[in-house]
Amino acid sequence: MSRLDSFIRRLQAQRACLDWALEAIRSVPGPVLEIGLGNGRTYDHLRSRLGKARAIFAFDRQLAAHPACAPDGDHLVLGDFRDTLPRFARRLGAVAALVHADTGSGDEAASQAQAQWLAGVVNDLLAPRGVVVSDQDMSSQRDRLPPGWQAAPLPPEVQPGRYFIYRKAATA
Amino acid sequence: MSRLDSFIRRLQAQRACLDWALEAIRSVPGPVLEIGLGNGRTYDHLRSRLGKARAIFAFDRQLAAHPACAPDGDHLVLGDFRDTLPRFARRLGAVAALVHADTGSGDEAASQAQAQWLAGVVNDLLAPRGVVVSDQDMSSQRDRLPPGWQAAPLPPEVQPGRYFIYRKAATA
Repeated sequence: MSRLDSFIRRLQAQRACLDWALEAIRSVPGPVLEIGLGNGRTYDHLRSRLGKARAIFAFDRQLAAHPACAPDGDHLVLGDFRDTLPRFARRLGAVAALVHADTGSGDEAASQAQAQWLAGVVNDLLAPRGVVVSDQDMSSQRDRLPPGWQAAPLPPEVQPGRYFIYRKAATA
Repeated sequence: MSRLDSFIRRLQAQRACLDWALEAIRSVPGPVLEIGLGNGRTYDHLRSRLGKARAIFAFDRQLAAHPACAPDGDHLVLGDFRDTLPRFARRLGAVAALVHADTGSGDEAASQAQAQWLAGVVNDLLAPRGVVVSDQDMSSQRDRLPPGWQAAPLPPEVQPGRYFIYRKAATA
């Protein structure tokens, strides 16, 4: 498989997981958090699927997205995730219906370590029955997920290991 | 359609056009030229489909691809296209069986003007019966193609205007 083949499959997996998650949170109130805005493609996807029905907050180190694919200033949180996410959690609590974390870099070890740390702070942000969609295996480093989380079955077209979905229990 | 949807369709169109072109040049000898190496995804695709059967030369302003997805120094030509492509044409002549030009930038007017200029120099590089696959309409500015070129029918899954294929006649 060429890198072009593999990239297309990754994007299709990403879209399938996000679309699955948007269905899964229909009865879960709360905003959507996009951790790792990047070029804004998945933010635009979430926005176009959700319309004005949900607030979407996007987090990134700096703004790399085209302004047309970035949230307004009230919904964009720039800075180091280690500052911005815990502060957001302290301010709003566990309110998010969906968290999409697309934070992997070329450095696999660093990406996995960050995903392990992210799992903890995402748990502080995630509402009961909320869903996490991630490009990283959030249990790989310690072989466990935050309490009350379960890996959700992937959409049939997504190869295991390509993208990850977790769901938080109704009661932790 | 979200930007994620649109991006997936563009990559699928790109792959379908390249795969079509690789079939179409089976009986056309000569190297493949990748104009606009970028991150090396389509270079890797061409390389993985062709194996060692053809030389592939890649051109770009500077190297942005991961070294694993870049050609060796003998097949990588860095610098301004306005210098490197005419020089290559003077050195090797019209020998390329396939030219893939993925050169569009965010600036549509500049991309189209560059594509019009590229059509001329690609013609100097392209063998008879050779194929051009491009992300730009190479006839849009002057409403004409280089002599002997024809737009080829797109693969059925590719929406017109998303990607472009041209073929040079056996005799100009």
